[in-house]
Amino acid sequence: MQPRLITLTTDFGLRDAYVASMKAAILQIAGNHARILDVTHEISPHDVMEAAFVLAPMLALMPSHSVNVVVVDPGVGSDRRGIAIRLGDQFVVGPDNGVLTLLAGSREPDEMVVLDKPAFWRCTEPSPTFHGRDIFGPAAAHLARGSRLVDIGTTVASLTPMHWALPIFDDNGVRGFVVHVDRFGNCVTNVPVNAEALADAKLANSKLYAGNTRIEGVKRTYADVAAGEPVALFGSSGFLEVAVNGGSAADLLGMEKGSPVSLLYSGELRPDSDRGTEFATQAHTSIG
Amino acid sequence: MQPRLITLTTDFGLRDAYVASMKAAILQIAGNHARILDVTHEISPHDVMEAAFVLAPMLALMPSHSVNVVVVDPGVGSDRRGIAIRLGDQFVVGPDNGVLTLLAGSREPDEMVVLDKPAFWRCTEPSPTFHGRDIFGPAAAHLARGSRLVDIGTTVASLTPMHWALPIFDDNGVRGFVVHVDRFGNCVTNVPVNAEALADAKLANSKLYAGNTRIEGVKRTYADVAAGEPVALFGSSGFLEVAVNGGSAADLLGMEKGSPVSLLYSGELRPDSDRGTEFATQAHTSIG
Amino acid sequence: MQPRLITLTTDFGLRDAYVASMKAAILQIAGNHARILDVTHEISPHDVMEAAFVLAPMLALMPSHSVNVVVVDPGVGSDRRGIAIRLGDQFVVGPDNGVLTLLAGSREPDEMVVLDKPAFWRCTEPSPTFHGRDIFGPAAAHLARGSRLVDIGTTVASLTPMHWALPIFDDNGVRGFVVHVDRFGNCVTNVPVNAEALADAKLANSKLYAGNTRIEGVKRTYADVAAGEPVALFGSSGFLEVAVNGGSAADLLGMEKGSPVSLLYSGELRPDSDRGTEFATQAHTSIG
Repeated sequence: MQPRLITLTTDFGLRDAYVASMKAAILQIAGNHARILDVTHEISPHDVMEAAFVLAPMLALMPSHSVNVVVVDPGVGSDRRGIAIRLGDQFVVGPDNGVLTLLAGSREPDEMVVLDKPAFWRCTEPSPTFHGRDIFGPAAAHLARGSRLVDIGTTVASLTPMHWALPIFDDNGVRGFVVHVDRFGNCVTNVPVNAEALADAKLANSKLYAGNTRIEGVKRTYADVAAGEPVALFGSSGFLEVAVNGGSAADLLGMEKGSPVSLLYSGELRPDSDRGTEFATQAHTSIG
Repeated sequence: MQPRLITLTTDFGLRDAYVASMKAAILQIAGNHARILDVTHEISPHDVMEAAFVLAPMLALMPSHSVNVVVVDPGVGSDRRGIAIRLGDQFVVGPDNGVLTLLAGSREPDEMVVLDKPAFWRCTEPSPTFHGRDIFGPAAAHLARGSRLVDIGTTVASLTPMHWALPIFDDNGVRGFVVHVDRFGNCVTNVPVNAEALADAKLANSKLYAGNTRIEGVKRTYADVAAGEPVALFGSSGFLEVAVNGGSAADLLGMEKGSPVSLLYSGELRPDSDRGTEFATQAHTSIG
Repeated sequence: MQPRLITLTTDFGLRDAYVASMKAAILQIAGNHARILDVTHEISPHDVMEAAFVLAPMLALMPSHSVNVVVVDPGVGSDRRGIAIRLGDQFVVGPDNGVLTLLAGSREPDEMVVLDKPAFWRCTEPSPTFHGRDIFGPAAAHLARGSRLVDIGTTVASLTPMHWALPIFDDNGVRGFVVHVDRFGNCVTNVPVNAEALADAKLANSKLYAGNTRIEGVKRTYADVAAGEPVALFGSSGFLEVAVNGGSAADLLGMEKGSPVSLLYSGELRPDSDRGTEFATQAHTSIG
């Protein structure tokens, strides 16, 4: 059997040695042959929802039986529980602060355990400020070696709930907001590609109001518009995205995390629309 | 056979999960034992020439039969081709946007194929915005497992050309410019160490005009001058470099990417020189 | 035998290809199966003491016989020596500029060699500006493959000394300073948890003067105070730390690397105290 992959998603950053500490704890248990994949360590500090948003679409890309550790853990050392779950062929390990519920989404986890067995921790007295190193990393290492969830923890019936802020659909279109600005300045929204309401026919004639501009239609890729032009498309992780070909949509369109976007299947935003005047009264102009 | 090394050079950055997505796609094909080396993911967004400059000197350092993936790909999803080539004992995989031509330099690639076989992609309908994950990464994974170039693509006769901005030599010296400012503020130029014109005898008495200073002679290492002093030397990747011992040449000498440098074997820059007055009329002063 | 772990601690950053160059040199010798763990590459440029501070507590976490490379090397190419030592079951490789002495602390290294054998370098003429790639990385690769210290170098009797700035204890308390601000804005000081003077009884009633505030008592974890409140605790690497629950102590308390902290077992700082008026005359107020 090839070793199970361990993936890491944290808000630790790369300046300090926190990531290395967690990895060293993993290698101590799983051996130097263990395979670790960094998803990202640059989640905004304490931003549980961003961690879930980044990791969720990754689960479908991972090899079977991968063990995904997510540590964004502002409540470390309090009475929040440490949890490991199975979602289909993927394991997820992390604090019970809502991140696991977000990752599960509409699915019910196939197994859920609380990490209450000190024999599977790094040490019997874990640091109250670093469960990533002392509890979550070691749990993942044991799972990667082949332990079962019921070996390393005790079954629980439910997780702490947390809910995505979902986009709002109506007959005329959909309103969502920017959940992530990537390195290129592309603005990824919470509007999913597979929404039934977004039939292709509707998209061809749609208008997207985003930042200081109005974009005609939804395209396939950045290069479908001229350099410097804004473009709406469905990005590689499956969400509606606002970009500028060869530039930063965040900078050029004045958008940031939290900025609203409004997709109309046809027609225009009107001041008396039920979408609210905050959109309609903006001066939406094309760029270029 | 030990696994072939896969190296990655991209402009994806480390905040988002793009690098992890590409690696997950690689591991799905090559197995969790696959060996991946990050060259850098911090190429300036869309800067094809910077990617080639950083990766080119690395090819000689890599183990035989390494598979080097370079994804700086502003034209993703357009009709630009995906390509894999062999340069001696190294493979290179990436978009046909000039980066491969720059990497090949004066060499003719030993083999060149276009990546036109969906059986070697991650999926038959690759994302039009992420060929790194869906085409280039998988191609590299197949090569790392031992596939031949002609297995995964169809031979082509030529690549899209792109040319380095070369330094200009004449009897009196050489003019070049800064192509990369590194983390320490060292300014790496496009003047190569192995240029025939740069005989040691000439360098001993040379003067380098760079930023706001004039540097006497070319030294071996930073510590050959006092702390805080500017120094010219040939850096570890083989290009003329302007540094300050213990400090940042970029900050202290007022240099940045694109700044010109002028190396004179002897004599001084004069206002009426054919090198242009923009150098000669600057106040070149020693620091310290 | 499983491969020995090689760990890397440098000030190279991740923008340039320096880290990749060192890793490529390691893989050339140790094979593509070699296991490398990045501790951090974001040590402040040339900050030898920060490198030692970050790596020192990591040595106890590493698997037995790990080879720890530390390259913060402003004197590269000068006559400073390249050294490899053994501290118990850990190897450390790096320049003889004080970093190794700091890492050894009060321990005497069990073995010490100077890396004077070109057969164990990457090439017989190493770059005078990049010993990480040409000497330290290759030395580590040979050790990881099972070479002994006396194989790759010649025994030496002593190292270049460097000393930690230690905290000052007296009957009333301890004065130290911030040695590291982490990504979350937590301010890690040089006051160790295991100091005999810091008995639990004393800590319960203690007051910590730090930045613009006075903190009552030393707690276990961030969540032991309300959100937005400052807290003193002993962090996961064993040093007294000043934090703000859910926020940045550096930003909110006005602290930075080098800021003094003063822990009093009881009583108050007085203007006429021998601790100096610079503390006593500040307006120390609680936050929140």
